[in-house]
Amino acid sequence: MHLLALAATAFAVEGMWEPSQLPALAPTLRAAGYLDDPARLGDLGNAPLGAVVSLGGCTASFVSDLGLLVTNHHCGVGMLQRAQKDGESLLESGFYAPTRADERSAGAMRRVWITDGFEDVTRKIRTAADRARDDRQRVDLTDDATRKLVAACEKSGAYRCRVASFYEGERYSLIRQIELRDLRVVMAPPDMVGNYGDEVDNWHWPRHSGDFFFLRAYVGPDGKPAAYSPDNVPYAPRHRLVVATRGISPGSFVMVAGYPGHTERWRAAVEVEHEARLKLPETIKHATGVFDLLTATIEADPAASALVGPSRGSIGNGLFNAKGTLEAFRRGNMVAAARARDAALDSWIAADPARLARYRAPIDALRLAAVEGEEHLRRDSLMDWIARGDLLHAASTMFRWSLEGQKPDARRELGFQERDRDRARARVVELQAGLHLPSERAIFERFLTELLSLPAAERPAELMAWLGAPSGDKLDAVGLAARAASRLYDAPALADADQREAWFGRPEGAFVASADPFISLAVALRPYEAAREERDKTRRGAELRTRPLYAEALRGMDPARTYPDANGTLRVSVGTVQGYSPRDAVKYGSQTTVLGLAEKAGDWPFAAPKPLLDAIAAEKWGPWIDPTLGSVPVNFLSDLDITGGNSGSPVLDGRGRLVGLAFDGNIEGIASDWRFELDKTRCISVDVRYLLWYLDAVQKADGLLLEMGVAPAI
Amino acid sequence: MHLLALAATAFAVEGMWEPSQLPALAPTLRAAGYLDDPARLGDLGNAPLGAVVSLGGCTASFVSDLGLLVTNHHCGVGMLQRAQKDGESLLESGFYAPTRADERSAGAMRRVWITDGFEDVTRKIRTAADRARDDRQRVDLTDDATRKLVAACEKSGAYRCRVASFYEGERYSLIRQIELRDLRVVMAPPDMVGNYGDEVDNWHWPRHSGDFFFLRAYVGPDGKPAAYSPDNVPYAPRHRLVVATRGISPGSFVMVAGYPGHTERWRAAVEVEHEARLKLPETIKHATGVFDLLTATIEADPAASALVGPSRGSIGNGLFNAKGTLEAFRRGNMVAAARARDAALDSWIAADPARLARYRAPIDALRLAAVEGEEHLRRDSLMDWIARGDLLHAASTMFRWSLEGQKPDARRELGFQERDRDRARARVVELQAGLHLPSERAIFERFLTELLSLPAAERPAELMAWLGAPSGDKLDAVGLAARAASRLYDAPALADADQREAWFGRPEGAFVASADPFISLAVALRPYEAAREERDKTRRGAELRTRPLYAEALRGMDPARTYPDANGTLRVSVGTVQGYSPRDAVKYGSQTTVLGLAEKAGDWPFAAPKPLLDAIAAEKWGPWIDPTLGSVPVNFLSDLDITGGNSGSPVLDGRGRLVGLAFDGNIEGIASDWRFELDKTRCISVDVRYLLWYLDAVQKADGLLLEMGVAPAI
Repeated sequence: MHLLALAATAFAVEGMWEPSQLPALAPTLRAAGYLDDPARLGDLGNAPLGAVVSLGGCTASFVSDLGLLVTNHHCGVGMLQRAQKDGESLLESGFYAPTRADERSAGAMRRVWITDGFEDVTRKIRTAADRARDDRQRVDLTDDATRKLVAACEKSGAYRCRVASFYEGERYSLIRQIELRDLRVVMAPPDMVGNYGDEVDNWHWPRHSGDFFFLRAYVGPDGKPAAYSPDNVPYAPRHRLVVATRGISPGSFVMVAGYPGHTERWRAAVEVEHEARLKLPETIKHATGVFDLLTATIEADPAASALVGPSRGSIGNGLFNAKGTLEAFRRGNMVAAARARDAALDSWIAADPARLARYRAPIDALRLAAVEGEEHLRRDSLMDWIARGDLLHAASTMFRWSLEGQKPDARRELGFQERDRDRARARVVELQAGLHLPSERAIFERFLTELLSLPAAERPAELMAWLGAPSGDKLDAVGLAARAASRLYDAPALADADQREAWFGRPEGAFVASADPFISLAVALRPYEAAREERDKTRRGAELRTRPLYAEALRGMDPARTYPDANGTLRVSVGTVQGYSPRDAVKYGSQTTVLGLAEKAGDWPFAAPKPLLDAIAAEKWGPWIDPTLGSVPVNFLSDLDITGGNSGSPVLDGRGRLVGLAFDGNIEGIASDWRFELDKTRCISVDVRYLLWYLDAVQKADGLLLEMGVAPAI
Repeated sequence: MHLLALAATAFAVEGMWEPSQLPALAPTLRAAGYLDDPARLGDLGNAPLGAVVSLGGCTASFVSDLGLLVTNHHCGVGMLQRAQKDGESLLESGFYAPTRADERSAGAMRRVWITDGFEDVTRKIRTAADRARDDRQRVDLTDDATRKLVAACEKSGAYRCRVASFYEGERYSLIRQIELRDLRVVMAPPDMVGNYGDEVDNWHWPRHSGDFFFLRAYVGPDGKPAAYSPDNVPYAPRHRLVVATRGISPGSFVMVAGYPGHTERWRAAVEVEHEARLKLPETIKHATGVFDLLTATIEADPAASALVGPSRGSIGNGLFNAKGTLEAFRRGNMVAAARARDAALDSWIAADPARLARYRAPIDALRLAAVEGEEHLRRDSLMDWIARGDLLHAASTMFRWSLEGQKPDARRELGFQERDRDRARARVVELQAGLHLPSERAIFERFLTELLSLPAAERPAELMAWLGAPSGDKLDAVGLAARAASRLYDAPALADADQREAWFGRPEGAFVASADPFISLAVALRPYEAAREERDKTRRGAELRTRPLYAEALRGMDPARTYPDANGTLRVSVGTVQGYSPRDAVKYGSQTTVLGLAEKAGDWPFAAPKPLLDAIAAEKWGPWIDPTLGSVPVNFLSDLDITGGNSGSPVLDGRGRLVGLAFDGNIEGIASDWRFELDKTRCISVDVRYLLWYLDAVQKADGLLLEMGVAPAI
């Protein structure tokens, strides 16, 4: 065991690799325990990568020839809410469709994206951008080139395309994806299985979450992507994963394939410092307020939990992340480390006249730009929180569509082209989370009060005019905010989905003339938002010029920096099943078991359902037992490199078979978006044997098992 | 490592052995790693046992030829308070006497007892007791025999003697001890070293406490025990421990020698059940009230912390223990386990007519007696809390002395003979903890209010008369309690130590005639107390008859029960340095380090002093480094069997050398007074290398190191 662990540690490599990089990693992969052909591993036209899809914010993978997808329970919560009928609480009870007829739509805005190919378009984008006369125009030329590439790619109607930037804009890829639009809920365990331990266990180990969820993708009877229809048929994926019923052990080679959203490992020191000094504290302050407010809402009215719970969970998770990251910054002296790295970079640049000429000026500009606008941070973050309210956000989005809709499609802002219309409409009509007006109103009032308490110069004039508020420093912030909240929320017509549906696509004039308070506020705030967008574009234009050079210089100094930041594209990380030492004299093993789950059982959030506890007490493990552990494993740790967007990603063994689903990171590695630490950063996955045992012994979902090619055994 | 750990586990034996049992354990000891002659180990006339002394409630050991003793910091807190001068806060600052002239008296009531010999007196005691005509008289005859044996033993004046009962009264030993009466404080680390982590870490692992404390015992210039005098000289102990500067590692053999006070491993099932159902919940309820009250006192008046802090700590510790024990009872199904054992015992008895004749009736009687008086439990426990107040306790003690003083010495109650007078007087005059009248008053008022709220029949008539309270159910409990508190505490003459000194030894008539409210309350309550004592004696008389037979039957059924419950006499436990698994996927290593200590540092209770943190940052470990760990070890775990009274006990290696000081148990083993579990029960000790490194690198106490025969090295 010790030798294995040492071998594993010696192998471990940080990195979210692009598929195209995998063949070059072949020797490393083979040494680590990958048993198939590494050249094939990078191939999207093959399993396993061909089976790994994006849900937008989460990852899933095909596990049957009939479009069955597996992902995380926490990725499916919103779909479950959407699928639920009056009087049901599917979150609490769980859901299982024994036949396809029982499956329920996950909602019109849900999509599955299957990556079909990459094309390097660096030259096309950067040549266009380099024709710019200034930073501001650089953005327009880049966006124009992007729109043209996307339009050409989507022309046949078979694909959905996007352009992604790698290495801070040093390289661009055009990504071609198949988009499926009819997604249905097949199986969800009860919340107290899928979310066992809730916030008490969130980010923590030892963990015992059954964080899995089954969906099915449907297409039209002609086999082509189509919106929901009862006539649709299951999608036949080109590739699917095989389930590894034998599982993993400590020291096992594992890899994860998925769609990580965003990392910050290429930030300049001044940006790290800005994050630690201003952005994280600001986020923590505001998120704490909202989280406490939503908690109080649920305490006062437990029935609100179904609507408010998911938002609260998501904000709580972000808050915990922000606090943990700030703490990790402090403990890891990350600002100092970033400063030291940048100082080394400066020396490296200064050592060579050619480097000085190429890098000095743009890197200085990048650093200066990082602290620009700091003085408005508070105002802008308060305005962002206000704009996040479901109804104001819907009104602003719809108004923006009316404005962009006046332009030719090829000239519109990214995200407001005809290709985006259906999904944008669905989002506005359905709304992301459940609408709960009392808490939304309270949040609006809270942030507006705070905004009105800023110095007069920081209060957006457009907002003050809409409020009919006096200029000057003295005003009754509390009273004004309460009156505004009353104006908006006393009788909000937009709370009705039909009203929203009707507004979507109306002309600009209808918005401008409207007396609806949300519509009129959205119209009033548009100039403020447009000004911010212009400022952001100028800034982005400068970054399009400076960031690639900063990344190039960093790689020049340190050739070990061999993978780009996460950007929502398909990546693979390789590693080892292993525990870690969180602190002096404590060692975490890499696997938990159903016996540990039962030991934790008690009050919420450990209120394990009786059928689960009964099945554990019966000790019928079937083939899902781990012989070394003596019962069924639940979760496992590995040093795989993941981040938000990887949720639901398949964890694969040395033959590319499914052994688990990644669903969380550990508290000690919570700042891994900024820095990955081999000895501390861990990925938490649910063991596929727990999923199989649960389906077999608790859910008795024989059909689902058979569809995955697994024989029920209990 | 794995093989060693397995070997160790196979060896591990539960048990607090009497020294006389050790030679018989020789094969086990040798196999486990004891390297000296096991026959010698049981010998009080030799090191190491000859160097291990009782402080009454704690254990210490001689570590120099000049009477230097080492024990736990938490055993020394009261002495430190006593030694402190106005304006000093020795608890906070720590204390070090660089020369003997700087050492300070630990207070007149402090004693050191050096065990000099045991004599089996079973026949003498039990023959006397067997002449009793009833259970009540059995107590008197047993006490008479005890007094005679003690008087004969102490006649020469060289010894202090006591009779201890083993195996529930199956066996008695007369124990001869040398008593030293001049004890001085030599060195105490600051509270934030000795008590690092306070209640957050109490009972917890990983731990980083420097729980050590140095005292020196003095005798008269003639070498004989004497009360404090500036002319006294250091005591020259016959035996002292050698310090093992190389320390221990995981898997090492260790043993601990000390004076464990009390365990409950021979209780009948009905007593276990009584504890779980009534006594622990009652303790938790009342201790929670007092703990919260003292916490609020300190929060409102931080200056009160010096006086109230130690009581609060002690009550908090007891409360945590009671809660943890109750929880462990539940988790371990201990009531059910005890019932199963008693059921097996009943079968074993029923299987043989001779057993039936000998055991059936007395064991039935024992079980019946266990639930007697349950209906008065609440009243009696409230009266006990009231009687615990410093001033009322002093008044009652002094009145009792006046009553007992009228009898011939040989007829007085145990504890009220002339041999007990000096120490009793010192306790009353000095008081155990710092006197803090506002909190004492609040506690009195709280419990009196609760007592007065009991049904009328449960309120002691003597107390009601003193209060001038109406009989009958209706009374104003709050108002009455407030008036009584005012009567006692508005101007309490007994708060003055000189007043207490003056009262001690006054005749009964002076007490009866006194108008002092505490004295008059003590006089008023005497009949209530006398009645309880009579009831307890009758009960004890029955137990003197039945308990030895219960123990004998248990041992008959299960010959593996080979050691008696702790009873404050010298015991040895043997075991292994090893960690444990507290829960699924978590493994605790057996050692912590100064690096882990520094990692924890922050706000109180982790406010490590700067000189300590600086010394750690300097990384000068000297010879005190553990080569495997790479820095200085702080605390370690072992499966040694300890309980209250063992605090400060020397932990010894295979050659009997000092490797640590036991100071705590772990939360998972908190019910070990009732049941020892090899896989969960652990003893937490401070590693002697931390002590040495601290003295060397932080305290720069070269003199202290040299006196222990250790060369300073940093």
